Formats: sequence, C-alpha cells, structure tokens
Amino acid sequence: MPADLRAALDDYERALAADDLPALDDAFADEPTTLRGDAAGLLVGADAIRAFRGTRGGVAPRTTRRLEARRLADDCWLLVSVHAYDGGGSGLQTQVWRRDPDRWRVVAAHVTGRTRAFDRTVWRTVGDPMYQGAYDGPLRGLRVAVKDVVAVKGYRVGAGNPTWLDGATPERHHAPAVLDLLQGGASVRGIARTDELAYSVAGDNPHHGTPPNGALPGALPGGSTSGPASAVATGQADVGLGTDTAGSLRVPASYQGLWGLRTTHGLVPRQGVLPLAPSFDTVGWLARDGATLERVVRWCLADGDDAAPGDGSTDGSTDGAGTRLVVPVEAVEACDPGTAEAFRAWLRTAAAALPGCTLAEASLGPLDAWAADFRTVQAAEAWRLHGAWVRAHPGALGAAVAGRFATAAQVTPAQERAARERLDGLRARVRALVADAVLVLPTTPGPAPARTLDPAALDAVRAATLRLTAPAAVGRLPALSVPLLTVPSPLGPAPVGVCLVGAPRTDLALVALGRRLAAATAVPARAAAAATAAAAPADRTTTGGPR
Amino acid sequence: MPADLRAALDDYERALAADDLPALDDAFADEPTTLRGDAAGLLVGADAIRAFRGTRGGVAPRTTRRLEARRLADDCWLLVSVHAYDGGGSGLQTQVWRRDPDRWRVVAAHVTGRTRAFDRTVWRTVGDPMYQGAYDGPLRGLRVAVKDVVAVKGYRVGAGNPTWLDGATPERHHAPAVLDLLQGGASVRGIARTDELAYSVAGDNPHHGTPPNGALPGALPGGSTSGPASAVATGQADVGLGTDTAGSLRVPASYQGLWGLRTTHGLVPRQGVLPLAPSFDTVGWLARDGATLERVVRWCLADGDDAAPGDGSTDGSTDGAGTRLVVPVEAVEACDPGTAEAFRAWLRTAAAALPGCTLAEASLGPLDAWAADFRTVQAAEAWRLHGAWVRAHPGALGAAVAGRFATAAQVTPAQERAARERLDGLRARVRALVADAVLVLPTTPGPAPARTLDPAALDAVRAATLRLTAPAAVGRLPALSVPLLTVPSPLGPAPVGVCLVGAPRTDLALVALGRRLAAATAVPARAAAAATAAAAPADRTTTGGPR
Repeated sequence: MPADLRAALDDYERALAADDLPALDDAFADEPTTLRGDAAGLLVGADAIRAFRGTRGGVAPRTTRRLEARRLADDCWLLVSVHAYDGGGSGLQTQVWRRDPDRWRVVAAHVTGRTRAFDRTVWRTVGDPMYQGAYDGPLRGLRVAVKDVVAVKGYRVGAGNPTWLDGATPERHHAPAVLDLLQGGASVRGIARTDELAYSVAGDNPHHGTPPNGALPGALPGGSTSGPASAVATGQADVGLGTDTAGSLRVPASYQGLWGLRTTHGLVPRQGVLPLAPSFDTVGWLARDGATLERVVRWCLADGDDAAPGDGSTDGSTDGAGTRLVVPVEAVEACDPGTAEAFRAWLRTAAAALPGCTLAEASLGPLDAWAADFRTVQAAEAWRLHGAWVRAHPGALGAAVAGRFATAAQVTPAQERAARERLDGLRARVRALVADAVLVLPTTPGPAPARTLDPAALDAVRAATLRLTAPAAVGRLPALSVPLLTVPSPLGPAPVGVCLVGAPRTDLALVALGRRLAAATAVPARAAAAATAAAAPADRTTTGGPR
Repeated sequence: MPADLRAALDDYERALAADDLPALDDAFADEPTTLRGDAAGLLVGADAIRAFRGTRGGVAPRTTRRLEARRLADDCWLLVSVHAYDGGGSGLQTQVWRRDPDRWRVVAAHVTGRTRAFDRTVWRTVGDPMYQGAYDGPLRGLRVAVKDVVAVKGYRVGAGNPTWLDGATPERHHAPAVLDLLQGGASVRGIARTDELAYSVAGDNPHHGTPPNGALPGALPGGSTSGPASAVATGQADVGLGTDTAGSLRVPASYQGLWGLRTTHGLVPRQGVLPLAPSFDTVGWLARDGATLERVVRWCLADGDDAAPGDGSTDGSTDGAGTRLVVPVEAVEACDPGTAEAFRAWLRTAAAALPGCTLAEASLGPLDAWAADFRTVQAAEAWRLHGAWVRAHPGALGAAVAGRFATAAQVTPAQERAARERLDGLRARVRALVADAVLVLPTTPGPAPARTLDPAALDAVRAATLRLTAPAAVGRLPALSVPLLTVPSPLGPAPVGVCLVGAPRTDLALVALGRRLAAATAVPARAAAAATAAAAPADRTTTGGPR
C-alpha cells in the first residue's frame, strides 16, 4: 500500500472525526460520477455527496480495527476497513481510491454504520409483533405501523412530543381502528413517529429526528403520518395506520411513492385517536401497493365483522368504465412545472386507457383563499383542543409547530366564523363536482423537498400543499393518493401521487378505480426496473476510475 | 460496460435469486484475498465466504433499480447497484469485478440489505426507551437489554419459545432486578432473546433465529443470555440483564468479548425471574467495559437505595496487591490448545504485572464427573419445574432443548440424590480454595464455534463448557468473565474470557480485581487497533485486483 495512500486514508479518518467538511469534500473526487452509498441509498455525484455531508453532523467516534487493501491498478486501490465504535458496535467502509495528479481521492464509497436497535426516527417502539392479530383473517400477515396519535392498549400516546408523552398514561383499550386491523388478522408491528401533534405535513421532528424518505434519499418523508410512511416505504411494515386532517396521509404517500387513503369524514371511528381539528380529522391507511390497501379498506369499512365488501355506497365493483374524471384547473396550475407536466402527460394516457372514461376540467375557485380559510378553522379548533397544554408547557414544542400554535392563539371567533361560512361555499362546490365524477389532481404540488430546506421555504411548501389538500378535507370527502408520477427533483427522479377525490362513502370504489388507473397507466415496476437497468450501460456508465 | 461483464452480473443476480450456491461460489474469485462484507462484518477469503453462503439460505426477491458502472482498469470494473425488494425496502451492493482468463469474477463485495425494523434474533421488542429510569442516578444514560426470562411490567415473559409466550400473561410488576436498574437511572431499551427456557449455552434458537456474535462474524453468540449479549456487543444496549445457571452470562461474555458477572447465589433477588434450576440460578449483568459493569454492580448490590459501595464483604476497595490467584489445572487442560496457550501466556503477564500478587495451582478434581453430576441435578430441577409444561406442549421445543428435557425426565430420585451428595464434595473443595484466593481459569474451553456447527458437535461443546462453568455454579460463588484473551479460530482471531471466581459476596471486589488485571495485562483497545492498522499494509496488503 503506497505510503501516500496510507497518509490520505489517515487524513480522511481525522477529517471524519473532526467533521471537517472542506477536508472531507476534498477527499472525494469532485465529479458527477463519484459515488457514496449507505443504508439510506446511493448518492451520485460530488454535489449530492457534499449536500448530504453538510446535514449529517459528523460520525460517532470510532477506531479502525482492520484494514484490507487491494491494488486494483497502479493508481487505483480498494480499501476496506472495519471500525469499532466507542459506544459499541462495528462498521464497515469500502472505498475505491484513485491517484489524482495532486493527491489520492475517493471515487466510490459504500458505508455501513453500526447496527442500531431500531430507527428511532421511524419508531417509538416495536415488537415481534407488538400485538398479534387474529390467527386467521383477510389481513393475515400484514404488519401495521400505528401512528403515535392512535391508542394502542398498554402504551401511551406520544403525539410526536416527549413532553406530551411524559404526561400521558397508558391506554386502557385499543382504538377501534387498531382493533379492526387486529381482528382482521393483521398484527401491530409498532408505534411509529408523527409530526408534533400531527400539526404539519413535512415529516420533520426536532425531538427524535426526521424519518428517512424510503423512495428518495435525502428528502423529507412527508407528514404528519411520517413514521408509518417511512416504515411502509422501507419494508419495515406493510400497512400504516394514520390520520389525515390537512393531508397527513396523502402527503407522505405522495412523497414516498405509497398508496394512501384519507377516508370519508366520520366513516372510521375516531375514538382513541388524538384530535387536531375535528371538523377535518379522519383516519386512514398507507400501503405499498393497491391490492394491500384494498384488502384493508374492504375489511375495515365493512363493519369489521366479516370480510365481505361493504354496502353499495362503498362497493368497489365499478370497473372504471364511464367514470368522469374532472381536473380542477387551479390545482394543476398550483404545481411546479415538472409536476404539472408529468400530471398532464399521465392524464392523456389515463383518458386513452380506460374505455368510456371521460375527462373534463372544472374550477374550484381561489385555492389560496380556500386554504387560508381552512387554516383559520383548523387553527381555531387546534387551539381550543391543545391551547391550554401548549400554554402550560412553554418550550415543549419545536419552532415550526410552536409558531403554528402561536398563530392559532390569535384567531378570533369572528375570523373563525367568517372562514367557516366561506368554506361552506367550497364544500358545496366540491361536493357538487364529485356528485357524478371523480376529481383528479396531483396530490402535492411537487416532490418531497430536501431535508436541508430552511424553515421559511418549508412553510411555503406547506402553504402550497394545503391548496391541493384542503378541498377534500373541507368537503369531508375520501381522497386517495396513488403513486403514478415520476418527476425530476434536485435529489433525483422522485415520486408524486395522483389524487382521486370521490363522493362521500365511495372510499372502496376510489381504491378500485385507483387500481384500474394504475394498471392501465403505470409502467409495471419490474418493467421499469428492467428498462432502467438495461439503459444503465449506455446512460450511466462512465469511467470514473483511473485516467 | 463490457457485454460479457453485463452478462456475468445478470448471471450472478439469477444465481442469487435461485440461491444457486455453486454458481455463486464460482462468481467470486477463489482466493484468500477475496472480500465480502455486510452489517454483520467482513469475511476475508473465498472459504469464509463460501461457509457464510451455505448458511444464509438465499436472499429476498429483489429487482435492480439502478446500476452504476465505473471502469477502474481495463480488466477491473466497479458495479454499484440499488435493489428494490418485493416486500418493500431497498438494498445497495458494491462489487469489484475482475476479468479472469475464463470469465469475470467478483474480488470484493459490500452488501447492505434492506433496513429491518429491528433484529428479531436479538430482540423481542424494543422502545425508545421501553421504560425510562429515574431521571438522575449513577446509572443514568445506560440502556438495558433485559433477557426474556425476567419480568418487565406490562409485558409477557417469552422464555425464548413462542408457545410459552402464547400462554403467558402480562407481568404486573417489574422484577426487582429490573426495578433496581430503573431506580439507578438506567432505562430499559427492550426485551432481548434467550435460548429456550434458558436451557442452553450456545445461543442458538430455532424459533426466531440465532443472534449475531458481535465480536466474531459467523460465530454463535453464546447463551442463554444470547440476545442481551449481542445487543451489548453491537452497541444496541449498554447493559445486559440476564441469568446464569450453568454459564449463561459467562459463556456469551467469553464468546463476544464482554464483561459478564454471575453473582453470588441468592445475592440478587430472583423474584420475577423464570427459574430453571433454583439450586444454581443467579441473576447478573453484561457490559462492554469494566467501568460500566462496576457502576451497575456498585448500585445493584448496595441495597439499591443509594450509590454508596456495599458492605465490607462486597467492597471493591482491594487494589489487587497480595491477591492469591489459583489456577485449577484441570480447567486449563480441558481447553483447546490455542486457548490454553493464550491463557498461560496471559497468566505470566498477570503475575508479573500485579505487585505482590501470587500465582499457584490447585486441583478441582475430575471436572467431567462434576459436570455430569451438575447436569443431573440441573436436569432434575428443570424437569420438576417445567416437565408438566413440556409434556403438555409436544413439539413446542426445538430439538436440542427438547432432547435435554427428554433426558431430564429420566433422572431418578436416587440419581439426583447421589449427584447432590457428590456435588457437596465439590462445593466444599471449591469454597475452600476461594477462602483466601481467587480462582482464575479460561471462561470457556475455546472461542465461539461457528454457527454452522452440527448438533452433535454443539452438544460436545456444551459438555466441555460445563466442565469449566459448573464449579462456580456448584459452589454458589460469584464468577466474572473478563475479555482478556484473543485466540485463533477458523473464523478469525476470537475473544475468550478469563474467569475469576471468588468467595461468596465478593462480587464487587471481583469486578475491581478484574479491572485491575485488565488494566495491567490487556493491550489497550486503541493501541491494539493502531497496531493492527499499522501492521495491515505489511501483513494484509495483497494485490487481489487485476493481474
């Protein structure tokens, strides 16, 4: 092993220990072909690696226990090292180093950190299982991640906030929404994280960290059903049980390429579920595929006592033929250009793919105004429910949600009343539209933002998102997000959902329609993967190695 | 990317999907320099990789989502691929391929599988924390893995067996051993796995899998406190709370390079702890370092109501000077040659390092006979406690433990009585030896066996192990395993413990002595690591790359 390579490796370890970002950046080749991968995903290009490193905040103290060096070419070596962490556990690091004119540099790295007991950004507690469901039933084999606002017998509700958790007492009963799943044969895998008091759609949390985006490394997971979404997207659970007030199921579904259903308001009992704004609060589910979601919906919306489909109003027997799809034009205009374009392209395919399916446009009116009124009513209700707690626990909430409550405290009864009256207009409008049609729009105005986004920009994303998510909430309508779009993003190709909004109690029919649209318009996953892989040699092969 | 390399990669993926071992073996260079690493550790050499593959049992179905290829030299390419698993989640694979005369082969691989919610071979359930301890106290910050034979309030005891778990009801109180730790400020991280009914020392479990050995990839973890040991060794917990009847704390400590204390019989209350053989059952702890173990012992053996050292009999104030170390000759002779040699070399250092410390030899008599009598009494007691359950649940136990109970059922009262009488002789003998000395011997006759060991060979290891562990159990004496030896093993350099056995209630003094011996004789970890790393270029660097 060349002495100067050894020195370069030692320098790198020192820079890592000191979190010396300029030195670390300089140790990696400053090229678009440089690679760095770990359990969270693969970063391609020096820029992506730099951005990641800026938010990592250093690595745990470690000592090199073993080093294996292999000469691959005169100017190219493979260094594989095993590290022991001061706090226990070991890690593995594989690096390909290349001799540049001035020094050795890393052109590719693969890192495995020490094994954590579990990811505390995703879960608060997990078990194998935490609760075993019925030994037989249509949901047998499904592992459920329960959002930490829903009562699980024997456990406290933490609501994404440690102070809240400290003041909570163990629940004496499962929430009916949990019990339904257990009775259907699903098991509870664990209690998963939520944004604080479910009052956010970003998925970040200042107390226990931000869960990973299972579809887009480096991106926010979406919230507030953040933990269940990350658990499902990463395969740690099969079903996420969560809530949706302003988009808390639809947004993480859109950001992480999942299926997510906000149910008709009042259809799933909210007993044992921490409320945020009862006029809009709903319970629903996340899944990786439409078939799983449909199993869950069929069971849970069929009174839970048998596996038969529900009554006519929630029956999914329509084949989608003759469905009127109505696009709210303002919603598409509110999207970023890439998402709007991907959505329009998808629409053309969808219209052509379903026989007899018609496509129309409609106006929902001023989305910004609706969203503002929605936020006013949501805030007033949230403050009535939680204001006393917020006031009694100064400093307990993170900055973003604390700010939201501070604003909420200022809403006057007159403002609330006026906003409610205006929302009655929106409700009538959107309900009229879905009386004989299904609204179809992008679930979110764009893909998941980077975890590095600053608070002001994040707040702007939230405002833009509520423009799209508020109408279904105001209409008390079921809304399904289906992972049908792929759009460009600074973090790479990213999923965005297509949202279907239907009449009250058409939840199951919506899922069935979503499955048919997906089957008709989505490139099958395996074919897409094959195409990607086949294209790789031509598209992506570069000689990033020795010159 | 060369077409034949692409074909080789595709062949490899197909072989992986089919778990076609010959094809997989052939895809890797058949050389001692070939590398394969993952979260469990680094395998060096084609033989080690082959052995691992034989026990892996295939990989989960997956699709390649992305492939990055980099030419490193004419005959050497780096291929990095991202996989999506059918069951959700993604994985990352980095491979260095070399063109051999006949075909392309992998010379190095680094694999990251999908993220699991947690390792169910290590834990049954985990939380963040599962139970918060006192907010202040000498054990503050320590995360405890509780062996699944100890009562944790609200949870069932599973005893390493799913049928047992099914029949259990939630515990209404913490075991005192748990409560002590919580009151000292430690938190319960989770309930960790155990060998079935704690009736084994290997650490394997047929129901939920065998926990990893945190010090020696591919090796058994040791048991029956297997899960806590793996959790502590891998940094997923700081303290393991377990039990030791026949070596169940000492053996995993020895196998995984941990500190492990079997306490004086009766010193730690056994309320809320599933018994196996009450004449020998004890409660104790595992830790990665002596300082942590001493914190725990000082607190838990000081009546738990303050942090002061215990009474004189358990005081650790001796500085080790003047200590008489007595080596039971039969114990060393019962070890494998490498372990015996490492132990003797360590003894010479130890004698020289502690001023005034004297070294002597003594005879314990026929270890095989003692161990046989110990097993007879243990079996009789285990059958009295659990025989009815075992009979009522045919097929519930794995083969090894079921066989042990089948044998136990045959023990006659006369045999038990005779064995007890003979053990009285051993007890008197060993107690006389420790009256003014500390027994010192290897904790186990050798390092952790490979996970691939067949049942008959494993049973032989158990028998050989009990020869060394039974005397302290029969004597009802405290016994501390300190990670002081490194011995050769087929899986690489492996830890083996040095066991110190003292008079009753000298538990804390034993830990203090162990720490002084460790400080005087162990190569400090950082220095050892530095030496290893420094030696690497000369010792291990090989040109495994293109010829």
